[in-house]
Amino acid sequence: MNDEAVEPYRRVRRHPERASYRAEDAYAILDEGLVAHVAFTLDERPFVVPMAYARDGDRLLLHGAAGSRICRRLAAGIPVSVAVTLLDALVLARSAFHHSMNYRSVVVFGRCSPVTDREAKAAALDRLMEHIVPGRSRDARAGSDKELDMTGLLGLPIEGFSVKARGGPPVDDPEDMDLPCWAGLLPLSLAPGSPAPDPAMTVGAPVPEYLARYRRPGAGG
Amino acid sequence: MNDEAVEPYRRVRRHPERASYRAEDAYAILDEGLVAHVAFTLDERPFVVPMAYARDGDRLLLHGAAGSRICRRLAAGIPVSVAVTLLDALVLARSAFHHSMNYRSVVVFGRCSPVTDREAKAAALDRLMEHIVPGRSRDARAGSDKELDMTGLLGLPIEGFSVKARGGPPVDDPEDMDLPCWAGLLPLSLAPGSPAPDPAMTVGAPVPEYLARYRRPGAGG
Repeated sequence: MNDEAVEPYRRVRRHPERASYRAEDAYAILDEGLVAHVAFTLDERPFVVPMAYARDGDRLLLHGAAGSRICRRLAAGIPVSVAVTLLDALVLARSAFHHSMNYRSVVVFGRCSPVTDREAKAAALDRLMEHIVPGRSRDARAGSDKELDMTGLLGLPIEGFSVKARGGPPVDDPEDMDLPCWAGLLPLSLAPGSPAPDPAMTVGAPVPEYLARYRRPGAGG
Repeated sequence: MNDEAVEPYRRVRRHPERASYRAEDAYAILDEGLVAHVAFTLDERPFVVPMAYARDGDRLLLHGAAGSRICRRLAAGIPVSVAVTLLDALVLARSAFHHSMNYRSVVVFGRCSPVTDREAKAAALDRLMEHIVPGRSRDARAGSDKELDMTGLLGLPIEGFSVKARGGPPVDDPEDMDLPCWAGLLPLSLAPGSPAPDPAMTVGAPVPEYLARYRRPGAGG
């Protein structure tokens, strides 16, 4: 998309060469991330909270508790901004000035509405669980009506978004290239450890395949 | 701190047993994290952006580009909310309803002011680099006056904060404990990979110790 065609509120001005306005770039980041940071304004004060989320087509699903103050306020349809950021590497340049991070981030803009219908809510919760641990929704006991009613679930149609990403090695000034200083990347990734069974587990269930081989889609990119 | 003594705007209402208002809990999270999500309101629209940061005593330092729109707006002292979230594990319960995540998060509230004095800026940039890669500021070429002038650096005195964290195994309802379903934690951590030298490196500098043994303070908690 031509930069000029992007509405000013979501146009990336600093390092515009790092920006993207393509849905597939946004969706790849949203599908890999696990935690979203949701920003909104209450009484003229900005707030930001981490929330579990999933992408469901061209909307986000945000998970909370039905009765919570934040869920109720967000459900009223106030404007929100939601960021998902994946940190890929620390960028170590020869000069302090050119140090940076490699990352992929997307900021989504829109307004939430509550998912209230039980059937839609059950489907949305399955979607959320499959985003976080693909395969899990087959094993876990599904929510009862009472549990569904206690769960707060918000749908956020994606009205607009901006993607920003940095990749590749450090970029130093030509006159610094021969400085006697190691330069390069320190890759970082969200790595799963060994599944730790609940000490209270009474059944001899083996570790499910989807945990033993857990991996985020696109991870290592 | 007694919950009742906490100002309403930063009081955690949902799962108050997961909240803390102790500076040492907030500082431990801030010192381990690498990316902050900074929320603010512009023209009645909420925004959230990821930024590199460091804690410097009882203030945060936020790093940007001196001329950028966001830096200029933040430097004007509008209210901001800054979240740092560390994801520790996925919590797999027997019931879909009790699935959760183990995390440690802090939300800081305050107003930024720009660090403009060159000497203060150089010290703040050292602090920032030592937060991200301890040891690095000894090796990298320090910023020139011109580079310092191009760097945007904001100081954010911490006016208020809330910590929220979940730890430990899944908590299921008593009647679900014998369901034939694996339950437990999938630990997650931000793991460093092998340092990747810049292909353009002309000197034979070895990988520095501080990269070979890179580890966030408190990581693995």
